[in-house]
Amino acid sequence: MSPLIVDIHTHVYPPAYMEMLRARKSVPYVHDPANGTDPRLIILSSDDDPSIPLDERGRPVDSSYWNIEVKLAFMRRHGINCSVISLANPWLDFLEPEEAQTWAQRINDDLENTCARVNKAGDPDKSLALHEKESLFAFGALPLSAPRADIVVDEIKRLKTLPHLRGVIMGTSGLGKGLDDTQLDPVWGALQDTESVLFLHPHYGLPDEAFGGSDAMNRYGHVLPLALGFPLETTIAVTRMLLAGVFDRFPRLKILLAHSGGTLPFLAGRIESCIHHERKFVANGGDVPGPQRNVWDVLKTNIYLDAVVYGTAGLQAAMAASGTDRLLFGTDHPFFPPLDDKEGEWPSVTTNYKAIHATFDNDGGAAAAVLGGNAARILDLN
Amino acid sequence: MSPLIVDIHTHVYPPAYMEMLRARKSVPYVHDPANGTDPRLIILSSDDDPSIPLDERGRPVDSSYWNIEVKLAFMRRHGINCSVISLANPWLDFLEPEEAQTWAQRINDDLENTCARVNKAGDPDKSLALHEKESLFAFGALPLSAPRADIVVDEIKRLKTLPHLRGVIMGTSGLGKGLDDTQLDPVWGALQDTESVLFLHPHYGLPDEAFGGSDAMNRYGHVLPLALGFPLETTIAVTRMLLAGVFDRFPRLKILLAHSGGTLPFLAGRIESCIHHERKFVANGGDVPGPQRNVWDVLKTNIYLDAVVYGTAGLQAAMAASGTDRLLFGTDHPFFPPLDDKEGEWPSVTTNYKAIHATFDNDGGAAAAVLGGNAARILDLN
Repeated sequence: MSPLIVDIHTHVYPPAYMEMLRARKSVPYVHDPANGTDPRLIILSSDDDPSIPLDERGRPVDSSYWNIEVKLAFMRRHGINCSVISLANPWLDFLEPEEAQTWAQRINDDLENTCARVNKAGDPDKSLALHEKESLFAFGALPLSAPRADIVVDEIKRLKTLPHLRGVIMGTSGLGKGLDDTQLDPVWGALQDTESVLFLHPHYGLPDEAFGGSDAMNRYGHVLPLALGFPLETTIAVTRMLLAGVFDRFPRLKILLAHSGGTLPFLAGRIESCIHHERKFVANGGDVPGPQRNVWDVLKTNIYLDAVVYGTAGLQAAMAASGTDRLLFGTDHPFFPPLDDKEGEWPSVTTNYKAIHATFDNDGGAAAAVLGGNAARILDLN
Repeated sequence: MSPLIVDIHTHVYPPAYMEMLRARKSVPYVHDPANGTDPRLIILSSDDDPSIPLDERGRPVDSSYWNIEVKLAFMRRHGINCSVISLANPWLDFLEPEEAQTWAQRINDDLENTCARVNKAGDPDKSLALHEKESLFAFGALPLSAPRADIVVDEIKRLKTLPHLRGVIMGTSGLGKGLDDTQLDPVWGALQDTESVLFLHPHYGLPDEAFGGSDAMNRYGHVLPLALGFPLETTIAVTRMLLAGVFDRFPRLKILLAHSGGTLPFLAGRIESCIHHERKFVANGGDVPGPQRNVWDVLKTNIYLDAVVYGTAGLQAAMAASGTDRLLFGTDHPFFPPLDDKEGEWPSVTTNYKAIHATFDNDGGAAAAVLGGNAARILDLN
């Protein structure tokens, strides 16, 4: 029996989402070139440059982004039995308040239907074990720009009624003010009460000045914002949650952090030390409450980490911080495809496989747990 | 025989530096309150608020910053035999071009004299081994704002003639444009040729917007900029050096990174993956040279890491990335003192001791190497 391999970090732009983006004329939007080549996704304001012909603006989104058959072929090529698909950034952050609820429902229903269709096709025999069939589950998207938090709460509750939904994916802006915004408390409460996993994922990065301004950024393409900006965005977001006491008020919140926590496992000790030395906090004589729970406790109780960190150094830190039983394999598909042949093995995937085997193969069943067992248990995949 | 313990991350504002800051009227400057309390250091523009009385502006710098006797007492209390002292940030980055050289020479001579005085007092018998005597060495400061790079080069060469200088400390701004500035090549060349270790240390952090703006920053005091901004600044700086090919042009450069590399060990795999997927680089068909050497090779060949990371998770990543023989104990004294009794043991120091022992005690002589053996070998302390 081959090992069960579950990919919990794998993105889609489902048909309903593409349809929504095609109907838009401002960023983000999708434009279909007249010559019939792949649709263009104009995702950043800087992409929407009027001096560039519309047919060449933004980036092409090939079928790997929106055709589930392409993802299934990718899964087969890489030995992945099961994927927990999620909407790619920027999710629904940009929607007008009045349309957020409708689109969230349509897109989440679309995800449910895709999973149901694949699972039925792949599993005519209900007795087939997860690692022998091909299956899909999904993280839903939330209507965070809706006019009232109870609309978000309602969608979280509704997602629990969809058979293949296993939690939600969210960026770091929350209701627009970051994840330490107390207006988010009803959302945290609903996620906790429904025992939904929140997959926290970066999109906004860091200001250009952090990297030396646009000159330095242009010189190195996407390396600085993707390699450093994304992980820091995640780290800042979850640290702000911690500092604002979100994990004190919602001690059973379950958060899966993209890219092995950004840099949280590595910086946890420094964060804890800085908290202990901060005079502003009540515990140190100041007037700001400050966090009650220790960052290491949160890492081992509330946090799950994907294993998308491309090396043993990151995995060692993730393991020391959260424990092997909280680490979950992922690919980040369809991002980071090979620059030449997309039909072969993807180095972005094999690098993570190799790092997991190098780190965990001599540690009992740890490799199997990281590759799939943990995901099946934590997300109740069956 | 007690183990040799060397602190390679420990800062001073030597008398000549305090004198220079006292003579200044713009940030950074030192003001002595009329009531005879500790001098105030006004280090940030935001500290220099005219609505605050001058006597209360900025932060007090007590004697631990400028009196070497206080550092020696701190060393004795924590079992440290030897310290490699360095100027605290912002070093000499702010000096007018015409005065940079003179002040650099005066301050470096001041550091040399302090070390010579202590070493002579602590070691009347030249045959006494390093771990049985009390000794000081120093990293020098560079006149980076000087009008010509050859002035910086001259100071690097002059430092080699001072018996207790063991390299230089530098921030991330270089000549004002970051460390990927090709104008720095003569400096890298001089450091490589003289086999001087460069201690790279953060000061500028990240823009406030990265943390959600001044509101979020005020809420949490110094936690976000110190715990996250500082480490990212270091990571960005060294990644820009890598991307610009500095380690290709100067393959024998030796750089000691503060705070265990910021987040470099954790993010190295992601950096390497992003480089391999960046179409801008020549290796991938683009027109920008891009780095030739692999980040893991640089981490094991050019990089040393201090062990100031406050936990086993960070140390595990540092060890996996650069190797146990490149990790060096440090304290960050006089920063992060206890909020109550500065005369006892400092938790910021004992946290690092505990993490080192927990990580390396079962690994042969690894703990002793990290605590002092590596520093003695790498910096030629005797």
